[in-house]
Amino acid sequence: MKLSFIGAGNLAWHLAMAFENAGNFICEVYSRDEKNARRLISMLYDARLNPDLNFAESESELFVLAIPDDAIEEVTAQLVLPENALVVHTSGSKSLESLRQLMDIYSDVPVRTGVFYPLQTFSKGINPLPFETIPLCIEASDKSTEKLLIALGQELSQIVYLVNSHERKVLHIAAVFACNFTNYLFGIAKDLTDSENLEFDLLKPLIEETVQKALDARHPAEVQTGPARRGDVTTLSLHRAYLSDKPELLHLYRMLSEGIQTRR
Amino acid sequence: MKLSFIGAGNLAWHLAMAFENAGNFICEVYSRDEKNARRLISMLYDARLNPDLNFAESESELFVLAIPDDAIEEVTAQLVLPENALVVHTSGSKSLESLRQLMDIYSDVPVRTGVFYPLQTFSKGINPLPFETIPLCIEASDKSTEKLLIALGQELSQIVYLVNSHERKVLHIAAVFACNFTNYLFGIAKDLTDSENLEFDLLKPLIEETVQKALDARHPAEVQTGPARRGDVTTLSLHRAYLSDKPELLHLYRMLSEGIQTRR
Repeated sequence: MKLSFIGAGNLAWHLAMAFENAGNFICEVYSRDEKNARRLISMLYDARLNPDLNFAESESELFVLAIPDDAIEEVTAQLVLPENALVVHTSGSKSLESLRQLMDIYSDVPVRTGVFYPLQTFSKGINPLPFETIPLCIEASDKSTEKLLIALGQELSQIVYLVNSHERKVLHIAAVFACNFTNYLFGIAKDLTDSENLEFDLLKPLIEETVQKALDARHPAEVQTGPARRGDVTTLSLHRAYLSDKPELLHLYRMLSEGIQTRR
Repeated sequence: MKLSFIGAGNLAWHLAMAFENAGNFICEVYSRDEKNARRLISMLYDARLNPDLNFAESESELFVLAIPDDAIEEVTAQLVLPENALVVHTSGSKSLESLRQLMDIYSDVPVRTGVFYPLQTFSKGINPLPFETIPLCIEASDKSTEKLLIALGQELSQIVYLVNSHERKVLHIAAVFACNFTNYLFGIAKDLTDSENLEFDLLKPLIEETVQKALDARHPAEVQTGPARRGDVTTLSLHRAYLSDKPELLHLYRMLSEGIQTRR
């Protein structure tokens, strides 16, 4: 399949190469940041730079919006597509309907719409991630587009799911708790060890083992450990006393400990 | 070295075997739960069951308290040790001084005290963990005991640190944030996906990648992602609206998002 990328950030970087590795062909890349676009093009087979958002003459069938959520409206307002093109966004939060409506407003020709959401975090420069094990969440405006996106997804990954916009939103919220907030807690732990000139590295084996146990369990709650889980009031109050001059951390410690104790 | 275990729970299970694998010899095991003690003994070279806490005739030099924090006082009150024995606890929270004081009160003979704290989470039955990579935190009442515990630790692990009681407490608090609370967040993510009949497994590759990035970064804050980090107010309010009928989760979502935004 021939396709074009709008956006050349972290996601586009990995996704475009995965598409080409699976035998597809990237015709054009557009990015607000031309340097980013050129860098991505240098990694691709024979893609060319599209200097603006006019793709009227493109041979591509699929146009991938790999841009921040809040840039989607601005971009679609300027986007010119060939008739009957398929345009997909790659966002965890945006509904298919919102893209549908934008295209209805802004496109002069009829287009098909869909969602192609890889449930993973991407950093440029880091080695290409093995796409086979990355879950792809697919949604489309009609059955034949759905079939096409599923087939395309299956070229890249073993884990392709039809996920509607509501389900995708809930997956994204769950991911915020399991990943974004978790990363924030790791940062707090790093701050605490730094503040006493202790090595954060000392905690790494424990973190790795904890995560592995949680992912292997039927439910993470079954492998919950720690003073709150044990109802160890002596340790809980010792910890609260230490945090008493850090009100935000103290509040967080209380809330999360109470959550664990309520769950017991 | 000859040693005895007081306690036959998850930690004792792994630690006793690690000691014997390093060429030491476990003489006796005591546990309130005799079945646990017998099960551990069956895994050891030639240990015998001690039916009570009288170790006056023991040949052991080292006595390892592998028991819950809140059992330490009750156990030390009944513990009878040979003169000049070395008794260590394995707790993240208890100070060395508190053990020292208990032994001063309850022991009829002079004993040495120390701490031998493996910074890891242990489950019985699961394959023995590779102790070489588990950080051991050592503290002792005198220099010669310290040297002895360090040497013993180095037989088990490549990562042996002298950590005083205050530092150990802070490490433990950091571990509560990085591990216990993190596990709780994984549980919330699992509840959210369950509530919509979505597969929690879909999140696992993302969780694994997020954790690996956080541990590889100079500071986890440097690899923070998500709507709060981006200042994506549309997505944040979409998520809060979804959580509006779950007040505890909503409160947690707000607090953690604000923490991330403040940090930016």
